[in-house]
Amino acid sequence: MAAELTGKREIKQERAARTRAVIARAAAEVFAECGFSGASVTKITRRAGLTLGAMYFHFESKEALAREIVRSQPERVTPPYETEGLQHAVDITLTWAHALLDDPFLLAGARLVMEQDSFIGPEENSHQQWTEVIAQSLTVAQRDREVRANVDVNTVARLIVNACTGAQMHAHLESGRQDLPQRIREMWNVLLPTIATPSALKRLCLDDSRGAAA
Amino acid sequence: MAAELTGKREIKQERAARTRAVIARAAAEVFAECGFSGASVTKITRRAGLTLGAMYFHFESKEALAREIVRSQPERVTPPYETEGLQHAVDITLTWAHALLDDPFLLAGARLVMEQDSFIGPEENSHQQWTEVIAQSLTVAQRDREVRANVDVNTVARLIVNACTGAQMHAHLESGRQDLPQRIREMWNVLLPTIATPSALKRLCLDDSRGAAA
Repeated sequence: MAAELTGKREIKQERAARTRAVIARAAAEVFAECGFSGASVTKITRRAGLTLGAMYFHFESKEALAREIVRSQPERVTPPYETEGLQHAVDITLTWAHALLDDPFLLAGARLVMEQDSFIGPEENSHQQWTEVIAQSLTVAQRDREVRANVDVNTVARLIVNACTGAQMHAHLESGRQDLPQRIREMWNVLLPTIATPSALKRLCLDDSRGAAA
Repeated sequence: MAAELTGKREIKQERAARTRAVIARAAAEVFAECGFSGASVTKITRRAGLTLGAMYFHFESKEALAREIVRSQPERVTPPYETEGLQHAVDITLTWAHALLDDPFLLAGARLVMEQDSFIGPEENSHQQWTEVIAQSLTVAQRDREVRANVDVNTVARLIVNACTGAQMHAHLESGRQDLPQRIREMWNVLLPTIATPSALKRLCLDDSRGAAA
């Protein structure tokens, strides 16, 4: 009896998680197409093929959905090779640049970044989130003497995130983002000689395979 | 008689230029407050205290007004000191960062940068425009051996504009842009050691006076 109840609870939880994922994907698609201000809970619900009741059971508002999409950005960027340190920082940015071309969650994130003040507090914005991700890899890299000792890791991480944000907007206007990976590589080519130690610089790989899925 | 006509024509032209300036300023204020999609010709006309007829005599659409604001950005950024080369590139970015705090034209530009695909063609966007401005100063700097010979001036100019765009968006969310000049200085501190020759690096000044009006 107890086992049967536990089983039913698990099925229910699984179904809830699946519905949540369906909603998040529908929201990502609608935000990517219409931006935050152009999206509505009704549009998202319709796209998900659900009732408003089901929607509000999982997300209390359009703002909550947008926060969820922004929050989930880093976990959608999984480099094709397992690395750490400086190569990992490079791989994250190149993987993001490639994946942005067709992942609705990342496309939504790129669009939402410009309207964040409508739904997110000043301390949990996506710049902050990505800066922490990059700073973590750079900190490991500095410990392992891949990044020079005199480099301020947080400053460089902020610069990288700012440059990626600007590159994404620029590439969106000029090439529908097709050349974003190339722009990100150019950024690293300028930055690496100041931040990397000579031996790390020799080992680093910036070619297309670093970001593109196999 | 001919002199009298010429005089009248000049007065008319002067009045037209004044009206155009009033409209542009009203448009800048409304775009800064509401963004491109939130602005309307009616709102702008009301702000300018003019009739719709007068408005349409000078600008054919909201799109034309937005293009005018974007186009005029570089001429609104006048560094407090006359310089050229690398110091000029530094001064332009710091002057922009300071002026952005209260110039409605620059505030409008910062907001419109995110909605440019609504009103501007891919080849005349503001990134392109600013990249040319910075690349010009860097080209002079390279000729005068302030920038290292192996530096690709256009790549670095693009990186600077991308980083400034991202820094502006980030600073807007976190500090209402108050610390933007500081973030721009941090960017230069990372970039200068790779791009500047040692002697130019020694001469460069990055302090607050470079961007703040006297």
